Amino acid sequence: MIYLDNAATTYPKPEQVYDSIMDCMKNYCANPGRAGHKMAMRAAREIYDARENIAKLFNIDNPMNIIFTNNATDSLNLAIKGVVKEGDHIITTSMEHNSVIRPIKSLEARGILNTIVNCDKEGFLDVNDIKNAIKPNTKLIVTTHASNVVGTLVDIKAVGEIAKENNILYLVDASQTAGVYSIDVKDMNVDMIAAPGHKCLLGPQGTGILYIREGLSVDILKEGGTGSKSEDLFQPEIVPDRYESGTHNTPGIAGLNEGVKFILEKGIDDIRLHEEELCQYMLDKLEEIPNIKIYGTKDSKKRAAVIAINIGDMDSGEITFILDSEYDIATRSGIHCAPLAHKTLGTLEQGAVRFSLGYFNTKEEIDKAVEALKEISKNN
Amino acid sequence: MIYLDNAATTYPKPEQVYDSIMDCMKNYCANPGRAGHKMAMRAAREIYDARENIAKLFNIDNPMNIIFTNNATDSLNLAIKGVVKEGDHIITTSMEHNSVIRPIKSLEARGILNTIVNCDKEGFLDVNDIKNAIKPNTKLIVTTHASNVVGTLVDIKAVGEIAKENNILYLVDASQTAGVYSIDVKDMNVDMIAAPGHKCLLGPQGTGILYIREGLSVDILKEGGTGSKSEDLFQPEIVPDRYESGTHNTPGIAGLNEGVKFILEKGIDDIRLHEEELCQYMLDKLEEIPNIKIYGTKDSKKRAAVIAINIGDMDSGEITFILDSEYDIATRSGIHCAPLAHKTLGTLEQGAVRFSLGYFNTKEEIDKAVEALKEISKNN
Repeated sequence: MIYLDNAATTYPKPEQVYDSIMDCMKNYCANPGRAGHKMAMRAAREIYDARENIAKLFNIDNPMNIIFTNNATDSLNLAIKGVVKEGDHIITTSMEHNSVIRPIKSLEARGILNTIVNCDKEGFLDVNDIKNAIKPNTKLIVTTHASNVVGTLVDIKAVGEIAKENNILYLVDASQTAGVYSIDVKDMNVDMIAAPGHKCLLGPQGTGILYIREGLSVDILKEGGTGSKSEDLFQPEIVPDRYESGTHNTPGIAGLNEGVKFILEKGIDDIRLHEEELCQYMLDKLEEIPNIKIYGTKDSKKRAAVIAINIGDMDSGEITFILDSEYDIATRSGIHCAPLAHKTLGTLEQGAVRFSLGYFNTKEEIDKAVEALKEISKNN
Repeated sequence: MIYLDNAATTYPKPEQVYDSIMDCMKNYCANPGRAGHKMAMRAAREIYDARENIAKLFNIDNPMNIIFTNNATDSLNLAIKGVVKEGDHIITTSMEHNSVIRPIKSLEARGILNTIVNCDKEGFLDVNDIKNAIKPNTKLIVTTHASNVVGTLVDIKAVGEIAKENNILYLVDASQTAGVYSIDVKDMNVDMIAAPGHKCLLGPQGTGILYIREGLSVDILKEGGTGSKSEDLFQPEIVPDRYESGTHNTPGIAGLNEGVKFILEKGIDDIRLHEEELCQYMLDKLEEIPNIKIYGTKDSKKRAAVIAINIGDMDSGEITFILDSEYDIATRSGIHCAPLAHKTLGTLEQGAVRFSLGYFNTKEEIDKAVEALKEISKNN
């Protein structure tokens, strides 16, 4: 199988990710923070170590500002719903995933309205459109860092600047970038970052993170046991406990920690350069095939390694089916949980075939995918 | 290490649980329900298979009524908050964990009041007290199935009967029982069951389940991508998708599935009998030690295999520390995230040392724990 569905979840993971999950499960998988015995303390130390490594990746001073969640959707719901109240206004973009759009749309019923800024047909955001959408009651700006459909990058530093100037909170959905693109929360004026653990951070499914800036208090969606202030019938204010009720996914976080350590060791720039190179290589090859429509910019410096295409009027699902069944190549077709992005790109009807590349992909695999597309294009 | 902290999380797991997690991670860990390629489809099938096996365990007709969450706290928050609105009343008991008490207390600020029925000093609930607490606006009854502090069992069938007669919803927190005690949702009139995957169901951390009765619609706490109706900006109504936004913990659910299959193969009665026997064995041995105070009933048929004790006036944390450091025995001390239960038992000041037994514990391990307690009792 040639796996080109890394925007959904990265596969494979570095070997040490698998090893650390099994080491945790077999040797010290007690309940962290819930008891004082050796196994529970080792589990708690591993979780703290993961917080430290993740904090390094984003230039975050205090590791306790990293909250563990179970996926990016969990992080985004907490972040979005936790900072707005009735009468507030939210700005977001037309390139967002449903994990951003659906929570924001659900808030309309609670009197929290929104403006969805349109991006251009390649998915680019004009940051002036964000500025122009600001109202006196704007409380929050939410943007993706890169489109999950077409990879188009958002200049999050420029948006962060606008947010700061206008005293508005800024939440970045880094689902497609955390672990590949540098995000410096201080330099970029980012108040919150949501990211899955199982995509570019190379951890397992069942993990997600939310960074919440020091001093920013976010209303919570759930309460429960935290292992702290157990005598209290109300949720404790201690961070991160306040946000992390119930038992952690300790083996998952141990695996995520190894994924992040892998990134820190390889260097995020080297990882990005590899993905950029592969992406440019594939874009250039695809341009040689007649009848293929490539969405978004042809410059891999301006997009994450996510490539969306169509072949003539062919159903995108059919292309993905042929790639899978005849060529053993894994891609995704249809509407990628981001209907407004498809509307922006003009692919709401046809959907698109998405090739999302990862650190472990090779030029040989890209060659095979391009050859397959050539044949499919010729035969249809 | 003699692990007697199974009420926090069970350890070890059956070998096939570890194996299935690795098999999933290394061989088919794509994103289930998000693409049509072979790996994604295999992942989706595994998740459906897990729903089927869990449904069998609770005599649930439709596997789609099983919702996957990331822990029992997640399940309980969804269940409790999803069925009440301003002006409603909730009944619960003094033996509940903070994962029940804290969400219920948080709802007071939204005009949803509660009655906490007191249990007796062994933790037993008189179901008539539930009946007497019913008001015209009572919408929900929540009880644990067994206390996490002292194991005391609740007659959930009797409570279910009262709930049904009065047209009130009944949510069972089965955190200490699912996988060891039979729960038949139809026979027992249970509308919702919350349970962790990583305790008696023998799955890994990072998994939880919520059963929601067919036809009961629960308001959700989060929206996001579901892989279904992707073109819709609002959350789809399809079950279970409506409740399961974002990427699943596929390897975790694969592990949980093996845990549940292990239980179905061994037979839940055999598992319970083993735990009851060990529990009675330990209770009888403990009674021979002077200066040890055992909380709860001495009849293991009336309690889950969770034993809470104190030695004279000794600090419970000190006992756990000595057990860990000198005898390599893992227990938990203090307030076990259930302050009202400790108040009920009279241990809010001193806390208690908790020995929680699991399917893999042996009489030899119990002997060693009892010997250790004899020595500690003699020396202090």
